[in-house]
Amino acid sequence: MTTPSAPETAVPGRLEHDLLGDREVPGDAYYGIQTLRAQENFRITGVPVSHFPELIVALAHVKRAAARANHELGALDDERAAAIEQACQEIADGQLHEEFVVDVIQGGAGTSTNMNANEVIANRALEIMGHAKGEYEHLHPNNHVNLAQSTNDVYPTAVRLALLLSFPKLADAMDGLIVALREKGDEFADVLKMGRTQMQDAVPMTLGQEFHAWATTISEDVERLTRTGRLFKEINLGATAIGTGITTDPRYAQLAAEDLSEISGVDFVVADDLVEATSDTGAFVTFSGVLKRIAVKISKICNDLRLLSSGPRAGLAEIRLPAVQPGSSIMPGKVNPVIPEVVNQVAFEVIGNDLTVTFAAEAGQLQLNAFEPVIAFNILESMLSMTHAMSTLADRCVRGIEPNHEVLEDYVERSIGVVTALVPVIGYAAATDVARTALETGRPVRDLVLEAGLLDEAHLSALLSPTMMTRPHRPTPTGTIPVVDPATDSGEVPRMVADDNAVTETGR
Amino acid sequence: MTTPSAPETAVPGRLEHDLLGDREVPGDAYYGIQTLRAQENFRITGVPVSHFPELIVALAHVKRAAARANHELGALDDERAAAIEQACQEIADGQLHEEFVVDVIQGGAGTSTNMNANEVIANRALEIMGHAKGEYEHLHPNNHVNLAQSTNDVYPTAVRLALLLSFPKLADAMDGLIVALREKGDEFADVLKMGRTQMQDAVPMTLGQEFHAWATTISEDVERLTRTGRLFKEINLGATAIGTGITTDPRYAQLAAEDLSEISGVDFVVADDLVEATSDTGAFVTFSGVLKRIAVKISKICNDLRLLSSGPRAGLAEIRLPAVQPGSSIMPGKVNPVIPEVVNQVAFEVIGNDLTVTFAAEAGQLQLNAFEPVIAFNILESMLSMTHAMSTLADRCVRGIEPNHEVLEDYVERSIGVVTALVPVIGYAAATDVARTALETGRPVRDLVLEAGLLDEAHLSALLSPTMMTRPHRPTPTGTIPVVDPATDSGEVPRMVADDNAVTETGR
Amino acid sequence: MTTPSAPETAVPGRLEHDLLGDREVPGDAYYGIQTLRAQENFRITGVPVSHFPELIVALAHVKRAAARANHELGALDDERAAAIEQACQEIADGQLHEEFVVDVIQGGAGTSTNMNANEVIANRALEIMGHAKGEYEHLHPNNHVNLAQSTNDVYPTAVRLALLLSFPKLADAMDGLIVALREKGDEFADVLKMGRTQMQDAVPMTLGQEFHAWATTISEDVERLTRTGRLFKEINLGATAIGTGITTDPRYAQLAAEDLSEISGVDFVVADDLVEATSDTGAFVTFSGVLKRIAVKISKICNDLRLLSSGPRAGLAEIRLPAVQPGSSIMPGKVNPVIPEVVNQVAFEVIGNDLTVTFAAEAGQLQLNAFEPVIAFNILESMLSMTHAMSTLADRCVRGIEPNHEVLEDYVERSIGVVTALVPVIGYAAATDVARTALETGRPVRDLVLEAGLLDEAHLSALLSPTMMTRPHRPTPTGTIPVVDPATDSGEVPRMVADDNAVTETGR
Amino acid sequence: MTTPSAPETAVPGRLEHDLLGDREVPGDAYYGIQTLRAQENFRITGVPVSHFPELIVALAHVKRAAARANHELGALDDERAAAIEQACQEIADGQLHEEFVVDVIQGGAGTSTNMNANEVIANRALEIMGHAKGEYEHLHPNNHVNLAQSTNDVYPTAVRLALLLSFPKLADAMDGLIVALREKGDEFADVLKMGRTQMQDAVPMTLGQEFHAWATTISEDVERLTRTGRLFKEINLGATAIGTGITTDPRYAQLAAEDLSEISGVDFVVADDLVEATSDTGAFVTFSGVLKRIAVKISKICNDLRLLSSGPRAGLAEIRLPAVQPGSSIMPGKVNPVIPEVVNQVAFEVIGNDLTVTFAAEAGQLQLNAFEPVIAFNILESMLSMTHAMSTLADRCVRGIEPNHEVLEDYVERSIGVVTALVPVIGYAAATDVARTALETGRPVRDLVLEAGLLDEAHLSALLSPTMMTRPHRPTPTGTIPVVDPATDSGEVPRMVADDNAVTETGR
Repeated sequence: MTTPSAPETAVPGRLEHDLLGDREVPGDAYYGIQTLRAQENFRITGVPVSHFPELIVALAHVKRAAARANHELGALDDERAAAIEQACQEIADGQLHEEFVVDVIQGGAGTSTNMNANEVIANRALEIMGHAKGEYEHLHPNNHVNLAQSTNDVYPTAVRLALLLSFPKLADAMDGLIVALREKGDEFADVLKMGRTQMQDAVPMTLGQEFHAWATTISEDVERLTRTGRLFKEINLGATAIGTGITTDPRYAQLAAEDLSEISGVDFVVADDLVEATSDTGAFVTFSGVLKRIAVKISKICNDLRLLSSGPRAGLAEIRLPAVQPGSSIMPGKVNPVIPEVVNQVAFEVIGNDLTVTFAAEAGQLQLNAFEPVIAFNILESMLSMTHAMSTLADRCVRGIEPNHEVLEDYVERSIGVVTALVPVIGYAAATDVARTALETGRPVRDLVLEAGLLDEAHLSALLSPTMMTRPHRPTPTGTIPVVDPATDSGEVPRMVADDNAVTETGR
Repeated sequence: MTTPSAPETAVPGRLEHDLLGDREVPGDAYYGIQTLRAQENFRITGVPVSHFPELIVALAHVKRAAARANHELGALDDERAAAIEQACQEIADGQLHEEFVVDVIQGGAGTSTNMNANEVIANRALEIMGHAKGEYEHLHPNNHVNLAQSTNDVYPTAVRLALLLSFPKLADAMDGLIVALREKGDEFADVLKMGRTQMQDAVPMTLGQEFHAWATTISEDVERLTRTGRLFKEINLGATAIGTGITTDPRYAQLAAEDLSEISGVDFVVADDLVEATSDTGAFVTFSGVLKRIAVKISKICNDLRLLSSGPRAGLAEIRLPAVQPGSSIMPGKVNPVIPEVVNQVAFEVIGNDLTVTFAAEAGQLQLNAFEPVIAFNILESMLSMTHAMSTLADRCVRGIEPNHEVLEDYVERSIGVVTALVPVIGYAAATDVARTALETGRPVRDLVLEAGLLDEAHLSALLSPTMMTRPHRPTPTGTIPVVDPATDSGEVPRMVADDNAVTETGR
Repeated sequence: MTTPSAPETAVPGRLEHDLLGDREVPGDAYYGIQTLRAQENFRITGVPVSHFPELIVALAHVKRAAARANHELGALDDERAAAIEQACQEIADGQLHEEFVVDVIQGGAGTSTNMNANEVIANRALEIMGHAKGEYEHLHPNNHVNLAQSTNDVYPTAVRLALLLSFPKLADAMDGLIVALREKGDEFADVLKMGRTQMQDAVPMTLGQEFHAWATTISEDVERLTRTGRLFKEINLGATAIGTGITTDPRYAQLAAEDLSEISGVDFVVADDLVEATSDTGAFVTFSGVLKRIAVKISKICNDLRLLSSGPRAGLAEIRLPAVQPGSSIMPGKVNPVIPEVVNQVAFEVIGNDLTVTFAAEAGQLQLNAFEPVIAFNILESMLSMTHAMSTLADRCVRGIEPNHEVLEDYVERSIGVVTALVPVIGYAAATDVARTALETGRPVRDLVLEAGLLDEAHLSALLSPTMMTRPHRPTPTGTIPVVDPATDSGEVPRMVADDNAVTETGR
Repeated sequence: MTTPSAPETAVPGRLEHDLLGDREVPGDAYYGIQTLRAQENFRITGVPVSHFPELIVALAHVKRAAARANHELGALDDERAAAIEQACQEIADGQLHEEFVVDVIQGGAGTSTNMNANEVIANRALEIMGHAKGEYEHLHPNNHVNLAQSTNDVYPTAVRLALLLSFPKLADAMDGLIVALREKGDEFADVLKMGRTQMQDAVPMTLGQEFHAWATTISEDVERLTRTGRLFKEINLGATAIGTGITTDPRYAQLAAEDLSEISGVDFVVADDLVEATSDTGAFVTFSGVLKRIAVKISKICNDLRLLSSGPRAGLAEIRLPAVQPGSSIMPGKVNPVIPEVVNQVAFEVIGNDLTVTFAAEAGQLQLNAFEPVIAFNILESMLSMTHAMSTLADRCVRGIEPNHEVLEDYVERSIGVVTALVPVIGYAAATDVARTALETGRPVRDLVLEAGLLDEAHLSALLSPTMMTRPHRPTPTGTIPVVDPATDSGEVPRMVADDNAVTETGR
């Protein structure tokens, strides 16, 4: 048994053979002839599958599980099974990743990636067994490493596992962002501001409510993503070529799933209908759709951040984003919202990736979807970029946001929208008149209401208390301020304690 | 109390008033001045909101629930509450739908649809109370019908309810299709055929397995859709303008949700974070994404149906779709797969609609998404078209499909792919040689294997038994046919009973 | 010869026959058995093809041209040719459109629409010839009306013509919008404002420049659309079933194109490669792509309009859009940008439609794209909605826009961005210091520059003249204002006359 | 003057300063502090801008043109101008590309890429001038390298030039594919086959016509792409920050465009409306739309190739694609259409990229689109992948395609569709009867027609001559074969010489 040898340039090539004939493979390469052909056939993006380490690790886990199941069924002897398992473990530990050289976009439904794995594992296992690379008579990429397997069950299973392995990083990044938003929400719980609908001044709220809403919306996504990710736990390992399980022992599928669960720590189950499971890409479409949903939401949040921080003088200027780099090569002192901007762009990427996934999924035919490689590539890329984007947004933007108190207060003070709070008391028509006059004259709502004798000052003050306007309250004729239970007063919409005072129609 | 009056052309117009001034409204119209303006402002598609009756019914339910809650809180007197409730009930029963005239695509975040409802309900309620239309001093569209409400909570709630009301029809259509596919799957359980991957002959399977796989994939969608639909049960009624609940009694949100649940039969809950819930369109994006997933799958199935029925002479010709109309204006006797074709096109529509939803969702700003009307319109349209497409596919295509036994058998007989079944016994390399020779010479795999002395005839026959190849089996040296438990042998991939005979490596 | 008879309910049905057998057709229907079957087969959207009158007119023109060409070639006798031509003319004049009943989304690659036309024309022509409807022995929908034609050349040709017939309305609407924007641009030529990049204050410009830029961008689209529309002038009429021209006289294709050009007023040419032209949908994809481009631009303009008019107190508030309806059911006095909002939504529809077109185009197979109906439907719908949206935007929004002078001036006055104008003289580093100090202290740039002795007052005033900053100028040490040629000074970026004064490096 | 120094690890860092303070930059780095910050801020994809060498070359050209124009206007002295020009030339020659380290997806509208260029050029120019890196007092990244420039005109101009520089490679690849398809079309000019519409047998054609149609459709795309690419020749260099040309000499824009034309060999023109040109991304949307159109077409061609080569036994099997790698890890002898499959996936990528471009374009606001980096990245990536895909398809698939004569002939012989050729003579109804009987009985069309006495044998043979059916012909009662001009008989649809024999209606 040896450790993986370092690449040496002087190793002479070795001759390998396949359906199409002979080819010389670099002597120090762990991959073999089929990988070589695939490398030559697919010169597309220049990005090898090893760009996504989780996919390599997942492949190693699946191959190991298959070997273990085959061994348990007596189809693989002790020595070979042990050598394959060790080779897989080494790969899972991060070794030999650079031997996974096939382009991420490839024809063949993943066959080249599967054969890349079969060949690397075989050659490393041969070394472990004391043989030279390429001596496949002792251990064969297809007959032994791929035993009872087809690309059509190995690859979809490995992609599912790769996504599950990638998921925690994304979830962590999202959680980090949620925490950052929540902390800011708590920090700004008492900062009054004008709410806006359709870009027009609406009614007051707190800046804390705004940040909490962003935190809420992302936290819903974490949950949605987690639930959807569970779909990936249903696998078709054992389906082999088309779901009928040809070449497999009847006990293999269940055994392999159990072994994979043990090896990977993920509790996999065998799909009920393996024919369906082999051609279906529904789980990918759904998961990509949830990634798109996250992209839509995070893009909306970034749009809002850029809008609220617009200025410094000729914009809304309600908040200040931390400056992370000079903003302009020509305009001195300009600072731009570059972090939200880069996140917006990641969101656009993810949405575009989802369309690619959709097209690839729809194009599947009969017993297999030949386009799973581009599906896998796009989802993995979306997860990777989104993970980085979320962390960046939390660390380089949200945590440093500061409110512009002066501007925020000024907007509330000059607002016409506060008249909405009077509607239950003075009616929609009278309130409309007040609003129109305020707009035309520039005079404050308060003055106009008093002047018109619509309310007395105490009642008006109670109703117009901006703090009160940020939560439900009982608008009585006497303007009683509702009883708030401080225990639940978190800056979010509170659950208020109701009292028994009659609220009459006339009071409105 | 009267019943709704029939439209009369001779009724003189009535003058109504709003923020912008006076306008004459048709005397027999139940809608009022704001609806009139909206009609003039939004001349876009020519399709009025009443095109989706579920939306009108949903609006009526929401308005009724709000009135009931307001009455319970003492904010609306008995007479007005009763009149509003009755008017809403009439609309829910299908009356006055033609009064909902605003274009489905409209600015204002649904305000015009909400005001259309407020005005129709107010005028009908006025009649019920014994007043003339337009006598809003007795019952006002805003002060009473819209009491404690904003478009920004009423409209999203109504759209959610409309989708939930539309859902059973779609689910029924999907169930019908699943049943049709399953029945065919059972009918074809013993029909052997070649499975194909990447458009190339793979290994045998049954036609029943193919139809069952389609049934399985759609049934997964029903479940996914049902789960996703539950997201719509979380509503923001009571949020009013921006989620802070301004103008509402603290008890209102909960009461209104309970009343709406009682009226509609759907168990609604109030969203925890009403500020988030008011601007968020995540549930729509997710639901539309699931509709897209269904579209992708149904399109794939239709692609398969068209492919398998291609011919009659120069195609795969494995199955025959029922002829539902002559296929060509120039080619006599041609029959085309028009039903799958129309379903493909519906799928493309749904995918396009999903993109519109995505754009509209991303464009939401600050405390509201102003583009919910186009979101609602596209999802409702997708559901409607998909419902029709599913029923049509089941009734006019699937139920009439017949297998072309002669062709199916011939393909299996001449197949090279059966050599796969020998791999565990003769190895990948020898099997490759057989396959290549078969392809080059056109000779049957069986003859070549025997000729090469790779297997004896009994063993070969056992391994090549096509029926056996459609499920996992234990490939022993003696070719023992596995013991199948007939109770579980449903034509789907069976769970086989394992026996205790040793399966040795050498046996392979 | 008679005129079209009015539908009568008492007319007994007539029996018609096709490949599938007999069916009773409503006695007063001009359509026949194949249309009847198609109606029953395609119950999808409920929208009949007559929803797009241009498509019906185009079909009539194509059928007429074919009849004329057949007559010229001696393949159709005088009486039948004349009757068909008259029937087509009546349809082109707007009669019998309600007989075109097949759903816009249909299988069969348009065969049902073509047969609908063949049957209506045949029956109307039979009446003209003095026969009863259904007496096809005298004039047959296939043998005569469809002579030398296939759906596969007639339908694509008719769709192309329909788009060309729809185009002028869209172009007019766009021109109207361009004029409205240009007029506002001229009106606001002298209104100074702050330009913004990345939502941050940049440097001054005029409001006129902003409106002119919008006009420019839309006018580029008109040109692009016009150029792309020309692709539709290449037709495949004469290709018949698959482009080989089977059943046609060698002279037919050319003759039919000439006749269609004469009848429609559009100068059509026969495609060079009719096999390619019959399956290709590239022109549709390109045209839809340009519609998408327009959607993207108009959406951006509407986003800008909503942003610039945000407020009235807590927004940018630079311009005021005309109020066209009350904005809120709860917030009195609120006026929302409902017209830009509805245009945004139309843009999202058009972008979604483009995706549907893309999917349908990609799904074409071999010698035909079976999905042209959904392509035609989506492009026609995009054109219709966009036409209405453009007119609405011009008439109900742009023409009534007013600047908010007070706010605009205030932004420029308080701006830090003006420091950019000093960079060529004081350098980037010093300018950065001034900018930072201005931001931190709230003090005007002007004061800080003078205080630091960076420039004398005269020079500074010349450089900071906001008007000067809105166009290129020569920043000399003495601040000489450049000589502007008034003839070219249109509010757009001017072409300035250069003088010979030396500009030295040190001067910068 | 020196040559670029090799990176040395031992060089001590140098302190640089910007708006945000001081940072130590690696001593051997040519980039500076702003690049450093950008690197840290944008850790997204891990792909640096240097991944697209054309973009770096384009940036160098633009910077050089600006320096030359500034020198001509006297704003830059001889020494600095020469040093900047030389540094730019070195970069254009391929040096220092590894110094362009900012992520392809970045916030700031390209500012970081522009500053990366400014800093690298400045430091290299400083070396050329005999100074050390970082001695910006002699030559400053902003004051001198970026003189009279803004990211907002430099970056869009450079992206346009980069696309124009990338275009020839794509055009070459497309031309190569067209040639390959045309050669096959010529080679197969006489190979008869069945044409198919809607996946059903239609009428005969030649395999040559099919390949020629593919060549035609791609050649249309080359033309379309070329025309669209011309839009990129309109640039906004000189617009600076927002299109008003602030800080520029009135003569600068024109001069810089001329200098850039001279340096790059592309004939650029200054946009008429620089304010519009600075925020507009219409040209990108259009170009990406044309790339999408190509993707749609090439995907359709690959779908067809996979369909026509399906088999070998249970598929259409009309053509054989060259085997480029073993197809399966489990099924020996299986060869899959991996090259068309990888091209399909590239097409899906390009379509997804187009959506990203669409979203980014729509998101532009006011005077700038901050999302041009993601637009540039996606279009460059689409071009790169498509270039590779086209070459691969030509070289590894199309050139090696072989027809399966036996199968092709058999399909034509057994075809029912040939009855279409008889319609002009025997009529649609009789032909329908023949077709139905042929389908039901399996008997040949020829026998049935003779048996029914519909035509005599000579006439029938003439009409059913399959060669004749692949082009328009004059169907006379005597079945005269039309006179073909051999000079124009290229295997495409021929233009036939008409003779003067009367063709009468009765003859049909």
